[in-house]
Amino acid sequence: MSAFVFVTPTWPTAPWVSAMRKAAPNMDVRAWPEVGKVEDIAYAAAWLPPPNVLKSFPRLKAIFSLGAGVDAILKDPTLPQGLPIVRVNDADLTNRMSEYIVLHVLMHHRQQRRLDASQAKGVWEGFAQHAAGDLCVGIMGLGVLGQDAARKLAMMGFRVRGWSRSPKNVAGVESFAGAEGLDAFLAGTDILVCLLPATAETDGILNRALFARLSRKGPLGGPVLINAGRGRQQNEDDILACLEDGTLLAATLDVFKTEPLPASSGLWRHPRVTLTPHAAADSEPGTICAYVAGQIARFEKGLPLENLVDLKRGY
Amino acid sequence: MSAFVFVTPTWPTAPWVSAMRKAAPNMDVRAWPEVGKVEDIAYAAAWLPPPNVLKSFPRLKAIFSLGAGVDAILKDPTLPQGLPIVRVNDADLTNRMSEYIVLHVLMHHRQQRRLDASQAKGVWEGFAQHAAGDLCVGIMGLGVLGQDAARKLAMMGFRVRGWSRSPKNVAGVESFAGAEGLDAFLAGTDILVCLLPATAETDGILNRALFARLSRKGPLGGPVLINAGRGRQQNEDDILACLEDGTLLAATLDVFKTEPLPASSGLWRHPRVTLTPHAAADSEPGTICAYVAGQIARFEKGLPLENLVDLKRGY
Repeated sequence: MSAFVFVTPTWPTAPWVSAMRKAAPNMDVRAWPEVGKVEDIAYAAAWLPPPNVLKSFPRLKAIFSLGAGVDAILKDPTLPQGLPIVRVNDADLTNRMSEYIVLHVLMHHRQQRRLDASQAKGVWEGFAQHAAGDLCVGIMGLGVLGQDAARKLAMMGFRVRGWSRSPKNVAGVESFAGAEGLDAFLAGTDILVCLLPATAETDGILNRALFARLSRKGPLGGPVLINAGRGRQQNEDDILACLEDGTLLAATLDVFKTEPLPASSGLWRHPRVTLTPHAAADSEPGTICAYVAGQIARFEKGLPLENLVDLKRGY
Repeated sequence: MSAFVFVTPTWPTAPWVSAMRKAAPNMDVRAWPEVGKVEDIAYAAAWLPPPNVLKSFPRLKAIFSLGAGVDAILKDPTLPQGLPIVRVNDADLTNRMSEYIVLHVLMHHRQQRRLDASQAKGVWEGFAQHAAGDLCVGIMGLGVLGQDAARKLAMMGFRVRGWSRSPKNVAGVESFAGAEGLDAFLAGTDILVCLLPATAETDGILNRALFARLSRKGPLGGPVLINAGRGRQQNEDDILACLEDGTLLAATLDVFKTEPLPASSGLWRHPRVTLTPHAAADSEPGTICAYVAGQIARFEKGLPLENLVDLKRGY
């Protein structure tokens, strides 16, 4: 009988094993490094797999990526070639990411940090507020996560635009695409949200040259960056310098070049930075395992796996 | 020719006069106390009018309430009887209130204050997060504002219920009504949002006896109060005491018994209180005046005024 294995060295595996056993009661569920007989293993679910682990399963049929970004699997230099890799596309995870994006866009729009400072000083201080429709939120990356966040932001009243590799058609969202669309996209964006997949093309994309092209006409007094994509997409020295010289007004960051963020980073205590510990959209074992079990059931019935990673694009 | 007057002693009148002249270019627009000949005045728009001012206009035909709550007008002991009072029902104001409610529900749900504290200490500290669907938000008051907030919270994934004087039918929102429905409403509510109109029946309704009936089964560890209604609806000593003994976990307050909130109030520096200076939903002169001018144009054509206050209900 074929077995299933979790390869998640940086996570506690017990809740995952228990959730998978619940989602697929007849499955033989294991967790690396206690993999048992490697010939049994037909399916692996992974996050940051160590080199040579996935490779050691000779009868592996499919790999599931636990988490929205598949870069954590693709960076395994010994990744077995030719196997289908399924991206977890889970409504629960999508919803959590949209919560994060809507929350932090609203915090900037409603100037919550300014209100926090007034409260801390004991000062009753109102100020003129703008309408959501006076702000344009630009989302880089219009995949499942970006499209859901875009729809919810539009419903809250913001003007929303998106930028992606290829043009997308999302109701109420102005779409820009490719290198040739980037300038126009940035020039009209007041709050920039990054939800890009981590690929060679997006590495370091959030840098001074890009920030300098953002709109400076919005009612906040300067552009805002929200990065819930990947830390390798941002130049953290540029972010700090741009906050200092006014190229950026403020930033909310969930991801960092090095995680946990080193204590020496100037981001920790910058008054206009809100940072969260890579917690924008947690993978919840119950719903993720239900999704994985459903895909395996399809596959064993001879139906195609869904939501496959395109290895050429890298996401 | 008939004239229009603003009676807003606590607001700067210049932006309102200018917005109204733009919305109704042929109107003779004045601002108290420079009212000119009182016989000219056919329409008044007011917020906290001093006694005897509205009464002094012998040919007044209608009164417009600037702001969502009409209690600011009804408390005028010399309010002329028998005149139509129009409640401002403006999509811009509704949208701003929903921004505030969605923002503060999300801040509690995503434990933003805990994350703020970790950042201030320089500690990278994730924690288990729950899904929006694990929380039930209960909205007291399902008028225009409550219904819009309810729809947007449901769209974000929260379970939403509402309590109002009479049962309401809002898609995706469980409706409870009247004194007989209050217990069941509170027992299932994790985050309580107050958007009630200020009437004799709702005075002091947010007190210890009510907080004690809220759900204690939710994932946050205790119930949360968000009041964006009116300060006279809340017992502030009860709120502080309930935060201390665990009857409430946290509170976000936009309104207070006395505004500005006195420096002596313990709410200012309570670590689990977020307070804002009655700024949840500002009245924006441009959109409000366009609404008022539109109603006057209808009225002068012989059409009925819309959104009239029911003086018996008090809202």
